[in-house]
Amino acid sequence: MSTFDFWFDFASTYSYLSAMRIEDMAQARGIEVTWRPFLLGPVFVAQGWNTSPFNIYPAKGAYMVRDIDRIARVRGIPFQMPKPFPQNSLLPARAALAIADRGKRGQFCRAVFELEFGQGRSIDDPFAIGECAAKAGLNAAEILQASRGDDVKARLRAETELAQKLSIFGAPTFVTADDELFWGDDRLEAAMDWRG
Amino acid sequence: MSTFDFWFDFASTYSYLSAMRIEDMAQARGIEVTWRPFLLGPVFVAQGWNTSPFNIYPAKGAYMVRDIDRIARVRGIPFQMPKPFPQNSLLPARAALAIADRGKRGQFCRAVFELEFGQGRSIDDPFAIGECAAKAGLNAAEILQASRGDDVKARLRAETELAQKLSIFGAPTFVTADDELFWGDDRLEAAMDWRG
Repeated sequence: MSTFDFWFDFASTYSYLSAMRIEDMAQARGIEVTWRPFLLGPVFVAQGWNTSPFNIYPAKGAYMVRDIDRIARVRGIPFQMPKPFPQNSLLPARAALAIADRGKRGQFCRAVFELEFGQGRSIDDPFAIGECAAKAGLNAAEILQASRGDDVKARLRAETELAQKLSIFGAPTFVTADDELFWGDDRLEAAMDWRG
Repeated sequence: MSTFDFWFDFASTYSYLSAMRIEDMAQARGIEVTWRPFLLGPVFVAQGWNTSPFNIYPAKGAYMVRDIDRIARVRGIPFQMPKPFPQNSLLPARAALAIADRGKRGQFCRAVFELEFGQGRSIDDPFAIGECAAKAGLNAAEILQASRGDDVKARLRAETELAQKLSIFGAPTFVTADDELFWGDDRLEAAMDWRG
């Protein structure tokens, strides 16, 4: 099994597209995905932005919604923009890092994305995040408590700093076992089929 | 034959990728491409940028070069970044609009892109642009003279204004016969196969 890092922010629309298909694609290729949530906020701030570029550049934002609409229709998945956009992704990012089991972490993350972009619901709500943990077969109360721990908070900061060190500037970003970096859901196939 | 607008700036790296494959793809589908050069400069200025976003955001710029390198290798086309980047695309854009014949305009545009990103040469040079016109079976001197005419200058301004009215925010952008907009070389297949 080769390893494959899936860097994403729960607030990212194109990360939703990848989250919904990455495990099936990985399984078909014998690849093991590591789900690595981080925060785009500090990355954007370093680029001089105080919110999503889709809010700063309205034409780009309107196009993004239409683009994802079209793709979601082709792939047979629902798509709704949550309000407000972007959502605050701090809570689910911490909760995800509190889940050690690779498979369950993936299931949890996917449940969060489905809630947010499939149903347009808020992900800044402990009750909703607890639901997602339960869906992944986890103890909701345990995960929520762990997400408030100092070690998990420090881990999310470290992951976000590492993302910046890796020159990650957006999400989703895929990093192969030999450190090749691919940005965007539309590069997921190329990333998984990368042979150096 | 259905019609298909290919909006591009000669300075745009991802437009090069599309320019090198769009006519083959269109022919296979019975689509007629209209090559519509415009200037990204005013579009970027309206977004608060004074140069290419690939220069403003260095991580994004370095990634773009690597991304296009990988894609060019897969497609079997050469790729070199011209210096400086972005190139001044005013002259070839005007020259292209001076070419009425659809097929010849496409051949000319492709020759300019090959010069710029295949060989890394400057496109701000009348001699080089004359070469490209000759390659497309045109009279170089005639095209260069027409590119200095007031009507061609006005046409390029009008095309750039129209691009902005259509909410085009980058290049390449494809607009289908029923006004569906697709941005980026990675959306070219979806744009050509769009059925409303």
